[in-house]
Amino acid sequence: SKVDLNCDMGESFGVYTLGADAEMLKLVTTANVACGFHAGDPLVIDRTIRLALDAGVAVGAHPSFLDPWGFGRRPIQGEDPGDIERMVIYQIGAVRALAEAAGHRLTHVKAHGSLGNMAAVDLDLALACARAARAVDRDLILVVMPGMETERAALQLGLRVAREVFADRTYDDNGNLTSRKKPGAVLHDAEMAADRVLAMLEAQAITTVTGATIPARIDTICVHGDNPAAVEMARVIRARLETQGIAIEPFSRTLR
Amino acid sequence: SKVDLNCDMGESFGVYTLGADAEMLKLVTTANVACGFHAGDPLVIDRTIRLALDAGVAVGAHPSFLDPWGFGRRPIQGEDPGDIERMVIYQIGAVRALAEAAGHRLTHVKAHGSLGNMAAVDLDLALACARAARAVDRDLILVVMPGMETERAALQLGLRVAREVFADRTYDDNGNLTSRKKPGAVLHDAEMAADRVLAMLEAQAITTVTGATIPARIDTICVHGDNPAAVEMARVIRARLETQGIAIEPFSRTLR
Amino acid sequence: SKVDLNCDMGESFGVYTLGADAEMLKLVTTANVACGFHAGDPLVIDRTIRLALDAGVAVGAHPSFLDPWGFGRRPIQGEDPGDIERMVIYQIGAVRALAEAAGHRLTHVKAHGSLGNMAAVDLDLALACARAARAVDRDLILVVMPGMETERAALQLGLRVAREVFADRTYDDNGNLTSRKKPGAVLHDAEMAADRVLAMLEAQAITTVTGATIPARIDTICVHGDNPAAVEMARVIRARLETQGIAIEPFSRTLR
Amino acid sequence: SKVDLNCDMGESFGVYTLGADAEMLKLVTTANVACGFHAGDPLVIDRTIRLALDAGVAVGAHPSFLDPWGFGRRPIQGEDPGDIERMVIYQIGAVRALAEAAGHRLTHVKAHGSLGNMAAVDLDLALACARAARAVDRDLILVVMPGMETERAALQLGLRVAREVFADRTYDDNGNLTSRKKPGAVLHDAEMAADRVLAMLEAQAITTVTGATIPARIDTICVHGDNPAAVEMARVIRARLETQGIAIEPFSRTLR
Repeated sequence: SKVDLNCDMGESFGVYTLGADAEMLKLVTTANVACGFHAGDPLVIDRTIRLALDAGVAVGAHPSFLDPWGFGRRPIQGEDPGDIERMVIYQIGAVRALAEAAGHRLTHVKAHGSLGNMAAVDLDLALACARAARAVDRDLILVVMPGMETERAALQLGLRVAREVFADRTYDDNGNLTSRKKPGAVLHDAEMAADRVLAMLEAQAITTVTGATIPARIDTICVHGDNPAAVEMARVIRARLETQGIAIEPFSRTLR
Repeated sequence: SKVDLNCDMGESFGVYTLGADAEMLKLVTTANVACGFHAGDPLVIDRTIRLALDAGVAVGAHPSFLDPWGFGRRPIQGEDPGDIERMVIYQIGAVRALAEAAGHRLTHVKAHGSLGNMAAVDLDLALACARAARAVDRDLILVVMPGMETERAALQLGLRVAREVFADRTYDDNGNLTSRKKPGAVLHDAEMAADRVLAMLEAQAITTVTGATIPARIDTICVHGDNPAAVEMARVIRARLETQGIAIEPFSRTLR
Repeated sequence: SKVDLNCDMGESFGVYTLGADAEMLKLVTTANVACGFHAGDPLVIDRTIRLALDAGVAVGAHPSFLDPWGFGRRPIQGEDPGDIERMVIYQIGAVRALAEAAGHRLTHVKAHGSLGNMAAVDLDLALACARAARAVDRDLILVVMPGMETERAALQLGLRVAREVFADRTYDDNGNLTSRKKPGAVLHDAEMAADRVLAMLEAQAITTVTGATIPARIDTICVHGDNPAAVEMARVIRARLETQGIAIEPFSRTLR
Repeated sequence: SKVDLNCDMGESFGVYTLGADAEMLKLVTTANVACGFHAGDPLVIDRTIRLALDAGVAVGAHPSFLDPWGFGRRPIQGEDPGDIERMVIYQIGAVRALAEAAGHRLTHVKAHGSLGNMAAVDLDLALACARAARAVDRDLILVVMPGMETERAALQLGLRVAREVFADRTYDDNGNLTSRKKPGAVLHDAEMAADRVLAMLEAQAITTVTGATIPARIDTICVHGDNPAAVEMARVIRARLETQGIAIEPFSRTLR
């Protein structure tokens, strides 16, 4: 059996460095590259794509609300879905051009931060993101949360989806992530996170905070590289997966 | 005989409106669309491209230094040409994706403001812009000033060029525009500008402030839509060209 | 009897012009100057303050969420009130320094767009804005909507308030503005707006959409200068007030 | 005898962290706080000022060209000095308001990056910066390079100056810093840097790359906290100064 490991990358900006991209590229098979709206800039994007190409890691666009100060994490209400669509096309197009110039190929789109969170529970917003991806390239895969509106939107538009679970987060019974503000919502213990990941993969289901299970095909696991502990957690998860004989491969190669 | 009329467009931003784009789209055959770095935003870009498509006007990207406050007119020194290249790829890619999503086609690239001025006299910078265009699409045409480094760079990389003269500017003997700071450098009389344009087209040469002529194939004439007088000048020039039996057609259709 | 007329100003940016500031300065007694976060820049702020000084118009700061693209109109959720406080201090301090350098005096603070709307119904946010004003200068007056949280917060902190009604907007029974999205929420007829303003001033009460009245001391009337019709409405309102013998004076001079 | 140690601080932005501010505040007596134009934001500025207050470190404003992407290091040509003046007033005013709100006092102004470098050799630009400081508060001290235009401008306007040398840079015979692009222009050896600092202090003169000396009263030494080696160099310099019996005190306390 197989699974993908994905990580958000290219989130440095100008003189500012964020994330251990070089280290994470040794551990993951898929990189979601910031597009300059919450983080990243043309130089950072280019550098990240070239490093990913060298490491044999797939790259996708990681579009966001325009919000560098808030790192795309602030919910910005009331945008017209049509406007979101244009904003996302712009971002995917920019990153795709840099990928092609570097001789790499854009395989997918994953909405960042508040845009992703809001789209997960708002079909109109989810459709806007999916339409944007489809407008740029019908072969782009959407990274979605199983059972949420992003999945629904992508399927409705005939796009392929990569269903994602988070290694370090707990889930509510509705299939959404438990709010970061609740105690225990974020896992810090690498072995515990690895245990959870393996259990979800074996069950092909998400386990919620109440112990309920939500059946879900799991294509990719999101890991982070923001700090040394996060990198270490990714390393532990990868090692545990390999020990179990689970192959780590980019979903862009294995999805039909 | 034939010539193209081009105009910079899509330079509104958020609530701010700039330029009589709708009126100019009735007068010109080619639009250079701002890419969000000196002006424009994804919504403005999309709207401009769709209006151009409806009007049968060709669209190209109009990339710039990242400088919304200075409208891309401030010379920013010391950038690495490789960085300029990435910055321009990002911009062309973003606009191209919006053009394709709208069912239109990106035909060309014209550097804006300081980036254009600096590239005209700096081969490395000119090559950076040309490489960026070629990286996105080998068929993109570069709009250049005849005899300047931008023309040299495009030809060196095997790109097609559209040689441009400005309807409302005078020229120094080196083929460059007379500095805006010099008296008389900008023409305000529409008939006088039309006379000059017709004379340059007939001679296929640029007339300089000293009366010298620089032979140059002229493919396109740059007109402006920033204010009512500019729109009127464009109208007069178009009318005078048509009266002389000169067809106004997009260079993207006539260039080989 | 007396009343103040206030208008948002200084909302141009770089090459972009917005608002008929010069015309409005002949009609109003108080100007709320954008601080660079939703609109305005140091040059625009300075120019606006100097024009106001020449016209004998009082100036205040008009702080906003950091959102130039959305013109400060997008609700940005989840900010910590302490962070809002710092953000507003920064803005008031910047404008105050330019006012002092021009020999003018900052008299008040009025929150812009979404920040103002959200603070009107959120005491913590309202207190953050009021604390920011008090931290810069205890004598700053807060422009508030009568009966809303902004008024409560200012009074709680011992700040003076200028109670404001909008000339061109209708009110719900809770004293808040009717949503712009509802039909009829924005008045376009200048005479009708003037009638309403005079009725509210005479009654010293806000009339709501259901015909109910909410008693409220009215210190200032907000008018706009975004378009020719808005300027004309301001002109009509001013003329009608003067005809009724109501003196138009800045609240900063009349408030105790 | 006495000297001040100064360091640029508050250069983080949003989620991005830059500089070991907390460590440097134990070593230096004066902090130059970024104003949000090249780095810093209202939250970072507030936090930095409060940390400095707790550490007994003086704070000043560190204004810049508006250039977050380039970190204020890109030379932006052709600005009108009057515009620079307004831009700097805005920045000083913003930081001063946050300082006062925190119960701290703004003691000085030091231009950042390209603005500082360009002002050092351009009297008009230097005068613009000095006028801005004077407009906000006549008691603000200007940090200047001895013998350069910034010193001249400050003295011409009757402002006090703190003459600064750089611990890790070499000097040309004209008193300016050797270009970073020349080999050896930046010192990386902490002991060697400390030797140079002690020699310059003893001689009250700058030693140039040719061995010439330029007499100069030295009030403050600039050290950096961008990386662990820089922090270590600051530590060594401070220790060596103290060993020599030189008191480390803020120039704002010792200058008359």
